[in-house]
Formats: sequence, C-alpha cells, structure tokens
Amino acid sequence: MKNIEHIAVFTSGGDSPGMNAALHGVAKTAEINNIRLSGFRKGYEGLIDGDMVQLDSNELKKWVHRGGTLLKTARSKGFLTLEGRQQALANLQKNKVDALVAIGGDGTFKGLLAFSEICDLPFIGVPGTIDNDLAGTDFTLGFDSAVNTAIENIDKIRDTAESHNRIFLIEVMGRDCGYIAIHSGLGTGADAILIPESAQDFLQLLENAESYDREDAFIAIVSEGDELGAELAASKIKEINPDVDLRITKLGHVQRGGNPSAFDRMLGIRLGVTAVEALLLGRRNAMAGILNNELCLTPFDQVVKEHQVNDELQNLLKIFGSKN
Amino acid sequence: MKNIEHIAVFTSGGDSPGMNAALHGVAKTAEINNIRLSGFRKGYEGLIDGDMVQLDSNELKKWVHRGGTLLKTARSKGFLTLEGRQQALANLQKNKVDALVAIGGDGTFKGLLAFSEICDLPFIGVPGTIDNDLAGTDFTLGFDSAVNTAIENIDKIRDTAESHNRIFLIEVMGRDCGYIAIHSGLGTGADAILIPESAQDFLQLLENAESYDREDAFIAIVSEGDELGAELAASKIKEINPDVDLRITKLGHVQRGGNPSAFDRMLGIRLGVTAVEALLLGRRNAMAGILNNELCLTPFDQVVKEHQVNDELQNLLKIFGSKN
Amino acid sequence: MKNIEHIAVFTSGGDSPGMNAALHGVAKTAEINNIRLSGFRKGYEGLIDGDMVQLDSNELKKWVHRGGTLLKTARSKGFLTLEGRQQALANLQKNKVDALVAIGGDGTFKGLLAFSEICDLPFIGVPGTIDNDLAGTDFTLGFDSAVNTAIENIDKIRDTAESHNRIFLIEVMGRDCGYIAIHSGLGTGADAILIPESAQDFLQLLENAESYDREDAFIAIVSEGDELGAELAASKIKEINPDVDLRITKLGHVQRGGNPSAFDRMLGIRLGVTAVEALLLGRRNAMAGILNNELCLTPFDQVVKEHQVNDELQNLLKIFGSKN
Amino acid sequence: MKNIEHIAVFTSGGDSPGMNAALHGVAKTAEINNIRLSGFRKGYEGLIDGDMVQLDSNELKKWVHRGGTLLKTARSKGFLTLEGRQQALANLQKNKVDALVAIGGDGTFKGLLAFSEICDLPFIGVPGTIDNDLAGTDFTLGFDSAVNTAIENIDKIRDTAESHNRIFLIEVMGRDCGYIAIHSGLGTGADAILIPESAQDFLQLLENAESYDREDAFIAIVSEGDELGAELAASKIKEINPDVDLRITKLGHVQRGGNPSAFDRMLGIRLGVTAVEALLLGRRNAMAGILNNELCLTPFDQVVKEHQVNDELQNLLKIFGSKN
Repeated sequence: MKNIEHIAVFTSGGDSPGMNAALHGVAKTAEINNIRLSGFRKGYEGLIDGDMVQLDSNELKKWVHRGGTLLKTARSKGFLTLEGRQQALANLQKNKVDALVAIGGDGTFKGLLAFSEICDLPFIGVPGTIDNDLAGTDFTLGFDSAVNTAIENIDKIRDTAESHNRIFLIEVMGRDCGYIAIHSGLGTGADAILIPESAQDFLQLLENAESYDREDAFIAIVSEGDELGAELAASKIKEINPDVDLRITKLGHVQRGGNPSAFDRMLGIRLGVTAVEALLLGRRNAMAGILNNELCLTPFDQVVKEHQVNDELQNLLKIFGSKN
Repeated sequence: MKNIEHIAVFTSGGDSPGMNAALHGVAKTAEINNIRLSGFRKGYEGLIDGDMVQLDSNELKKWVHRGGTLLKTARSKGFLTLEGRQQALANLQKNKVDALVAIGGDGTFKGLLAFSEICDLPFIGVPGTIDNDLAGTDFTLGFDSAVNTAIENIDKIRDTAESHNRIFLIEVMGRDCGYIAIHSGLGTGADAILIPESAQDFLQLLENAESYDREDAFIAIVSEGDELGAELAASKIKEINPDVDLRITKLGHVQRGGNPSAFDRMLGIRLGVTAVEALLLGRRNAMAGILNNELCLTPFDQVVKEHQVNDELQNLLKIFGSKN
Repeated sequence: MKNIEHIAVFTSGGDSPGMNAALHGVAKTAEINNIRLSGFRKGYEGLIDGDMVQLDSNELKKWVHRGGTLLKTARSKGFLTLEGRQQALANLQKNKVDALVAIGGDGTFKGLLAFSEICDLPFIGVPGTIDNDLAGTDFTLGFDSAVNTAIENIDKIRDTAESHNRIFLIEVMGRDCGYIAIHSGLGTGADAILIPESAQDFLQLLENAESYDREDAFIAIVSEGDELGAELAASKIKEINPDVDLRITKLGHVQRGGNPSAFDRMLGIRLGVTAVEALLLGRRNAMAGILNNELCLTPFDQVVKEHQVNDELQNLLKIFGSKN
Repeated sequence: MKNIEHIAVFTSGGDSPGMNAALHGVAKTAEINNIRLSGFRKGYEGLIDGDMVQLDSNELKKWVHRGGTLLKTARSKGFLTLEGRQQALANLQKNKVDALVAIGGDGTFKGLLAFSEICDLPFIGVPGTIDNDLAGTDFTLGFDSAVNTAIENIDKIRDTAESHNRIFLIEVMGRDCGYIAIHSGLGTGADAILIPESAQDFLQLLENAESYDREDAFIAIVSEGDELGAELAASKIKEINPDVDLRITKLGHVQRGGNPSAFDRMLGIRLGVTAVEALLLGRRNAMAGILNNELCLTPFDQVVKEHQVNDELQNLLKIFGSKN
C-alpha cells in the first residue's frame, strides 16, 4: 500500500448542517499526521473541472459552527459518464492525490463505487444528509439539526395555533423516511404524525380530527414522503368537518440550513476524524458511521437507503397517536 | 364621567407576538391604580358569550416573553350582527365593566366603532398585527418579531442556497403591505425584493436573474401580497433560463408565532400602559400608537389600513435593487 | 405483585431541559394503560408535604417544548431524616399510590434507596441532569440542551473575539465532569479545552497561548470543575504575556434553562415511556437509561457518579488540543 | 469641494452587531455612485499601519447577517499621539482617499475631532455601540441586538428560577447607562431593575425581596454600571433573609456578539447609506443617527455620552418596580 501523503475531500449531493464540522475533523487529523489536505469544490463537478483548493484547519475551525458547506456542493451529471470519471481520475493523478474522503448521501457513495472501477485510490465516505435514511449509521450528519430547526418552527406555530384553537397540518422533510416527522412530532406534542411507513396514521388522524373539540389547537406533522400528504389530509378533514379552521404549512428548505446543532458538530468531527484514521489504517470503500454510539465502517455496497421504523418508534407512534 | 373601577381587555383578529406583553402592561397599570381587570377570551366571541376571566399581573409577568395570546383570539361573525353586539353590551353591563381595551387590527377597531353606536363605554385600542399596515403608529405590535423570524429563516436558507449556487424565491407575509419583505430582504442581503407597491421590481428581478452567473446564490424575497407572486416569477425566470436551479419557499405561519422580540415586548408594555393611562385621562375611541418614537393616540376612524412605502424606503429599494 | 392503578411522579434535584417531555412520556403511557397519574410538586418536599396534583397528558403535551419542570423541584433536607421519609410514606399510602417515578440525579436515586428501607413500592428513576455524569446511560436528560445553549453563546463570543483578536476563557458547567466542556469546545472550534480529568491540558493551553500570534481570536473552554479554573489560567497567561487582551466569561445558569433540544425532547419521552412500561413489567429500583442507543434499566446502586472520558474522547482531545 | 472618488471606512472601539450591515450600506451606496471603497482593518491601528483592503458589496451582502465586524476593530494607543495621526494622514494621502466613514462610539468620534486638526478630509461617523449612550441618535447600532441576546438568556434563566422558586440577580451590560437593563428587565417580566441612574431601586429591590414569598421565582436585572451591583445586592438580601436561595449570573460578552437583530440590520444599512449620501452632499464631521425615526446628522462635538432616562422610562420603572 502506498503511503498516504495527500488526501482530497469534497462534499456532494444535498448539503446538510455539520458538513463543515466534518471538514474540520478531516483537516485537523490530516494536519497532525502531516498529510497535505486539498478540497474539491462543488462535489464531483469540481473533480471533473479540477477546481481544487488547499484546506487549513486554522481556517476551518471558524466554520465548525456554520451551516451549508464551505466547499459548495452539486449534483453532477458529468460524473455519470465514463468520460467525466476519467477526467476526474486525471485530475487526481495530476495533483498526486493518494486518497479521497467524500461527504454526502447514497448517491455520492454509488458514484464512488462506479469510480472504483477505474480508480484504485482508497475512498472513505461520510454520511451527510438530513434524511437519516442510510444503513450503516444510526444518525446521518444533519438529521439532528434538521429536527431542531423543525421543532423550533413548530413551537412557533403552536403559539398561533393555540391562540386560535386552529388545526395545523405541518409538512416536514425526510423524503421516503419518516424520521424527521416522528422526532419533530413527538418533540412538539403533536396530535398526529403521518409517515410514509404507516398507512393507518391517516385514519387515526381523521378520527382524532373528527372528535376535535375546538377548545384547543390540533397539530399534525406530515412527512413530505407521505403519499397522501397534507393537502389530501386537509380535504378529508374538511369533508368531515366543513367549518374547520385549518392551515397547511410546509417548512421547506429552512430545514437544510442553519448552524449545526451540538450533536451534528460533534458527529461531524467524529466522522471526519474517523475517515482519515480509517484511510491511515488501510481501509477503503467504506462509509464511516455511528452504530450504537460507536464509530464503525460499512462497505459502500451495504449502505443502501433504508427507512425502517424500528420497534421502539412503532411503539411510541402507537402510544402518542392514540386518542386522548 | 364615571369613575373607572373595572376595565376589561381582549385580543382579537390575527394573533401577533407581543400581545401578552401588552396584556401585562394593561394589568400592571390597572393594578397600581387599584382598578379591577378582567379579560374576555377569544375576542368578540368571548364578549358575546360572557367568557370572562380575572387577570393578575403576577401571573401575566410570566407571559411577557411568550408568543400568541393568553386570552386566545378569534374572528367573530356574531359581532357583525346587532344581536351579537347587544349580547356583548349586556355582558359588560352585568359585570359592571367601565372601559374596554382591545388589542387587534383595523377590523377590531371597526368593530368598536360599530359597537360605540349602542355602547357608550370608553374604548382604547392597541395595534396588534404583524403586517405594520395601520396609520397612527410607525410600528404595529408583532411586526418586529415577524421580521426577526423571517430573517432567521432566510439566513438558514442562505446556507443551503450558497452551498448550491441556487436561486431561491422566498415568500414572506404582509398582505398588501411590503414592509416585512423590505425589512427582511434588506436585512438578509437579498438580491431582489418584490413588493405589491412597486411593479418594476419584477422586471428588475428578471434582469438580475438573467445575468445571474451561477457562481453564487441568488435570493429574492417576495411579499405574499405581490400579485405576480413567487410562482409567476419562477416561471418567468425559467422561461429566460430553463436550466436554472430554483426553489420556492413560503415561510408561512411561523412568522406569526414565537417569543416576541425585545422591541415588541417593550412596545407591547408601552402601549398597554398607555391604553390604561389614556382611559384614566378620559380619552376614548382611539388607538394607542408610537409615532416618531413618541406615544400617541389616534381616533379609530383615522386608523385606516395604509401601505405607503415612504421616500426613505423607496430610496433603499432603489439602491439595493440595482444591478451589481 | 399488586396491580398498578395509581402512579406518582416527581422531579428532584437540579432541573434540566427535557424534564417536561419525560413527564409527558410518563403521562401518556399511564393514560393508555388506564393508570391514574399524580405528580408531587417540589421533589421530596412535596412528598413530605402531600403537595399532590393530578396530571393530564392533554395539558402536558403543551409543555414538551418548555424548559424547567412544571412540577417544580427542590433539594430536600427533610427527606434526609427518617421522620421526613415516614411522612412521605404516609402521604403515598393515604393517596393509594402504587408506584413512583422519580426524575433527577444521583442524589435523587440515593434518596429512593434510603426510602426503600421503609417503603416497598416499586420505584423507577429517570436521569435528569445536564452534567452527563451518571453510569447507566450514555446521555442524561438535559445534557444535549445544555451543550446547545453553550455553543450558541460561544458562537456569539467568537464574533466579538475575532473582531478584536482577543483571548477568551469561557467557563461552562459540568461539575466534576468535562463532558459539556469537551462537546462545546470541539463544537465551536475552540483552541483549547480544560477539563478536570486531564491536568496536561493546562500546560498545552499555556503553550498555545504563548505562541498566540494576535492575528486571530483564541478561545479556550474551561470546565467549572477544573481545579485550576479560568482565573488561574488567565493569571498564568498574563504572566507569560502581560499585554495580552484577555476576557473571562462564565456562561452560568443559562445552561440549565431554555427549551429542550430535539434530542432531549425525544430522550425525555423515551425514558418516560420506559419508566412506566418497566413498572408494568414488575421492575423496581432501577434507572431507565439509554446505552448504545438502546433503552435499558440499571439498578440504583450501580448508578454511581462517574466521569470517565472514554478513549475516543481522549483521542479527540489529543488531536484538537495539539498546536496548529 | 473636491469630488469624492474614493471613500475609506473603518470600525473602531468595541464591536457591536450590525457593523457589517452598516459596511454593506456604505458599500452599496458607494457602488451605485461609482465611488471606490476601501476599508482599513482594526480601527485606527489600520490607518496608522496602512492595513487597507478593497470592499465589494457582492461580498459584503453575505455579511449583513453576521455579528462582529469583518474589518476587525481595536482600541488604538498610537492614534492618541500626533505621530500616529500624522502616519494615518500619510496613508490616506498615499492612497488618495477623499473621505472617511468611521463606525464606532464616542471615543472614535473624539479621535476624528483630534484628527481634523491636521486632516481636512470630510468625516462622517456611524454610532456603533451596544450601550445606547450617545446623544444624536435614539438607538445606537447593536443596542437592539444586545437586548435581544439578554432577554433570550434571561428567558432561559426564568425556566430554572421558576423550577426552584429561586432569586436570581442577573447582571447585564450597558456601562453607566441603564438602557439595556431597563429594556431587558421590562421585556422579561423582571421583579426588579437596578440602574445607575436611580438609587432608590435598590431599596425597592430589598423591600420586594424581603416580602418574597418563596412560592415563585424572583428575578432582578442589574446594570453593570450600578455602583451597588449584584454582589452587594445579594449580600444585603442575605442579611435580611439568610436562608434565601439566591444566584448571581453575569451575562457578559455574549451580549456583544451574535447575528444582529432585524432592527440593527436595517439600522446599520440606513446609517451606512446616510453616511455616504451625507458625504456626497458635502457634509462633514457629523454622526449619522436616527432621531424620532428620522435619519439625521449631529456634529461630533455634540455627540457626548449621555445616559438620561427619559420621563416615559421613569414612569415605566415606577409602574413595574412597585410592589405587587
């Protein structure tokens, strides 16, 4: 195995809070091991274009607390082509890069798998996505921040909902995965939680809304991945109860931004450190993660998207979704 | 003039942050003047239903920092009828209420004007609305909080917008009045601000978006009252530039809730104190407000909705809307 | 085993964010199992005084997002006496309480152990303390919120520190345990972290401060439990470098309050549910906790205070404490 | 009068939130008037050292929402000497600077007055200080942000104070001026407010604390400028009432940092625009300010420190300081 003297890092796919903390973890660990660290900007686009910058932990420490990604990110069409990947390889060779750290989601890791067919450098991934929808880690980087942003906004909506004894259907992010909805719904005392994984929530929501006594607010959290969705839920509720005072709010992209939470800063640092240490131990083509509060590595081909809601969460949904 | 021994207060119309601070201002001023204070719940509905509670400044001081309104609020159809108003009058007489303080918007004050035809109690209003669309006060109660909520969320969106060099059209509240859009747009370094009061913004937005170089984020703030609106703006931009990476976010009802800002807590207290002091001085049928940083009273019939953008703001829009 | 028909809950010791979420978890689980739930106010004081209230999950759901504890808390001298405990027992018997849930720290659980000598009701504890200093759970309730409050304030201080290229020594809470210091120090890109568990940090701090180039801020996080402390560190730095521009800030009690973080809301709910479910399964005299992301129970006598900094954290401290 | 083709700006004295917004206001106004804009770093130190950078509104718009000052600041001993000022003059001449905008406090403006003896360039000041202690403006830049930071932290402390029915003495900033104390005290429902301008507060505090019934929290806000101060107040209270559960918290430097509030962002932009427009109109040696919600200019020699608490605030203190 070649000695690692130069590592390159990039962020790819949707951005998530904590990516800068991960960059700092990578940078500081590289520094104390006397490894040169470069960053490619805009994800795979930067690899193809050779858009490379030097990274310095003294500068990065001022970014630990900031959202987004200093290196910018993008979804790249070019890297889907062999030509694009060959161009990227040429840039890595030209710059004598010995190993790659990629911060992103499962699309990012699939890209690395494809890349490994022509490039034998060691790759380590860091799971950066707010959706918490990857196997190989209990928590993806950015999930905790997204839930914190969601609950802070839902708390605000509670103020106005209670002032009017109004029904609110609040849509949160999470794609096909109800984790953000479950955590933000339980965390805000919501009256109903609708997730893609459970069809019966919907009936329960209607039943609860029907018996809604108008002497209090009624707050339902709807995962964006729920096929039925907020609009359909609203129309069903209005069928049952035409005079109901109901509003729909989609929290939207605010959930992607903002300063990372304490948890995500720490997680980013831990995963960034682990990524470099794994490379130094000769590991390759695996994602750093945290399972049962322990750092671990999972081969890329096992990091499939999954969105199973475990037994404990199912139990919580049953308890808190029941009629009062 | 009858001595004032019992004041009743209520909140009406849309809720806004700072209403509880105003209630505390009313309560404490009543207390030191040995005046009994009651609150009617749910606005005019509570007057009609006789839903009255005693208010205590020792309890209310714990609500100064909280959003929404402890007394709840509602829009009342019943009070639009003579029968409803007569019922309200009977409740006031039965409870020996000597004066009323109403916290709400211009609809609330119109209701008081109609009520004054059958009820000769003195009324004083406090302008509680996030829209800042009333004559008689430079700032309505809740406006500053709504702008703070807007900018905090727009700051978060900037993180993700800059990470992707993406265009964001962000819709903020404000009805026919662009004040929230102007303040939150200038306060977040937005690239364009679209308000109902100015049609040419739209062309400027398109021009700016056309020259948008994709090496940076582009953030446009759109007032909900703007007829063209975010969707139309988006479709126009996409006509010019089909590949553009563009997202629309509506901040929605989060802007109504949340703990009031420092400014609104102080404003609420100042207006609440002023309302009671005005009643004690024999004033009636006027709204307490703040003009040129001085407390003042404006007769209800002069508190029309207005949404003039003054010369200074026009100048700022011109400066900051210009192409870089 | 007697059937459980009536559970009582109380909060004791220092308050921590998430206690209300735990109360909601207890209340909702009791409700769906048709168990009556009461709360004693002010910890053991309330047990002695018989200060008991009924708890309702419909009311508690509005407290999930709020800091402090609805039931109030206190440190009780009376419960240290046999007489006090006998009085508490009499109150439990009079009210036909079948089981107790106690939310607090290790002092609280020691109290239960003493109480178990005269009272054979089943007790389950929930670890509520910001210090994260208990065996039997990876995270105590309130720790994540305290760290989030700390980092938000340290982020603010960074603004002014960088504007002046100034040294800041910032003291955070955590008693004898450096967890808050480590998490908030790493999470804010601090230049040095001083914890009670490691004496050599101090020399490293001095060394780093000596080479401090005055072209940047220098931020050191000091755990309150560190014997050397912020003042001593400051005087040592000034000995080395008399002209240095240095400030000390103690974050203080703000770290105990504020709305709980998303993590602590979820943790509170999970632990509250677990406590009641454990009682229903016949468990007693154990603390509910979360180890390796799984819910578990630990007998009270094994919940000793501990403040071991594990190998991973030691590694992180070494990496990030090293000179740049 | 010489045409203005090149303006230089700097920030000086203590930093305050909103300084970057002011820089953006200056930059954008310069830009649309085709004026070159430079910034000197670290206040007067940078003028002496010739530490000059080019400023660009496209970059500055990303700093509007950030605390501190991009240009850094310092207190300069060198500029107190004639030699230092001559060096500064030489740098301005060498770089063909035609006018200066200085963002800072009254020390900054006194420096400009001294400088005007040897330098006949036009100077305009912008009042950047959290203390709100200057004549010539109703609000200094940063005051509203500091009060918002204070109230958010005091709100957190209220959670823990109420959980324990504890007395808290909370010290806020403001030097000899009680504005921050008054606004944050009223805005958080405090039970007492101690400011330097009023000696009798102290007796009232003791009287209130004496009658404190231990069934609630008791929160007193103490201005740092109050000679008696928090420690003395604490010892007096403990004399009267030895068993009292009392804590002192000093909010400290967090009040200087953090993202500026909406109000300060707007104020910064308005004052920055006004400063450049004033220079273009031939004005000199005056501070831009906002009096009665209107922009205005006040000659430097009239911008003395003042800390008069006006009649309205005196009235509020009387009302809210009275015993319940």
